[in-house]
Amino acid sequence: MIKLYYAPDTCALASHIALEEAGAEYASVRIDFAREEQRSPNYLAINPKGRVPAMVTDRGILTETPAMLAFIAQSFPRAHLAPLGDPFAFAQVQAFNSYLCSTLHVAHAHRMRGHRWADDEAAIAAMRRKVPQSVGACYELIEREMLNEPWVMGEDYTICDPYLFTLAQWMEADGVEPARLPKVSDHRRRMSERPAVRKVIAQELA
Amino acid sequence: MIKLYYAPDTCALASHIALEEAGAEYASVRIDFAREEQRSPNYLAINPKGRVPAMVTDRGILTETPAMLAFIAQSFPRAHLAPLGDPFAFAQVQAFNSYLCSTLHVAHAHRMRGHRWADDEAAIAAMRRKVPQSVGACYELIEREMLNEPWVMGEDYTICDPYLFTLAQWMEADGVEPARLPKVSDHRRRMSERPAVRKVIAQELA
Repeated sequence: MIKLYYAPDTCALASHIALEEAGAEYASVRIDFAREEQRSPNYLAINPKGRVPAMVTDRGILTETPAMLAFIAQSFPRAHLAPLGDPFAFAQVQAFNSYLCSTLHVAHAHRMRGHRWADDEAAIAAMRRKVPQSVGACYELIEREMLNEPWVMGEDYTICDPYLFTLAQWMEADGVEPARLPKVSDHRRRMSERPAVRKVIAQELA
Repeated sequence: MIKLYYAPDTCALASHIALEEAGAEYASVRIDFAREEQRSPNYLAINPKGRVPAMVTDRGILTETPAMLAFIAQSFPRAHLAPLGDPFAFAQVQAFNSYLCSTLHVAHAHRMRGHRWADDEAAIAAMRRKVPQSVGACYELIEREMLNEPWVMGEDYTICDPYLFTLAQWMEADGVEPARLPKVSDHRRRMSERPAVRKVIAQELA
């Protein structure tokens, strides 16, 4: 059985929702960031990167949200969470998720995790100040160029949807005004009404 | 026929090598960063992100290196560039590439592209100073935990190999001493001896 290591209010929510949507049998294990459990020897033995999510499978451990999401889609093909038989359409799904991971999430991380890229406090504060602009620019590109309706890829709900929803939960705290982004906001509302999403959020916040 | 938009000394090299290794019919189109061609209206119509690589296919345009590499592997299955029939092994390939994209490449980008995340010069200089440490930590994790021999995934050459090779070209300029990383250095040497790699590098530098 799959075991998902997560912490509330992190990008692990995307994989958590995808497992639920896939109808997977899985267990979720909460990692306590307040106690820095992600850097404990026990957890580092699971994920040497000291981050969430991580997923223990029968074959071994996986990390990195885009890889985990594609794995969930491929392992539960009957849930139709990605266009598995079409390399081009699958690449579009992957390109969207890669952009979220390496550009949007990274821009966001400069608000709380500036110490990854600079040591002095003034520089960390300067990074924090630019987050509304850098994260905002990502959402404007998504709104204008990348987002279909009702779901990211159009008619078909895919592994792009829980990932966008997860990062969009941080929009207000990043200083980005949702009213500027009607399509992203509509997507977020539609996602929040899905039973799988409600169930997972209730469990993560319990 | 596939058309790859690239600039020399960028991460586009990974997809360029993968196309060559796949035996694909493709054309490569150089984008001139010195003239800021990546922000020209003509190029923004191809890739609104204003970056390389981008790949024009018969079905449409793809961006994002991890997605493009997986697309190349899936489109040319006879080249065996990824374990396509095994979702877990494929996810391991993707997790490696996602780490390169969202952690290693991002750490590196703080040397030359700090303006993405802060506006003031002192902060940009502070980011630049930390690059040897942050990029070095990525390579230490790769060396210790993620790299098999002779190739990243072990016996089989995959789309992980040109991607690691591409980013490792920047190691010295990032202030990371290759002698500290014998496995990464051996991998780089093995890659540099492959005919496809030699051919693509000669073409990009011509």
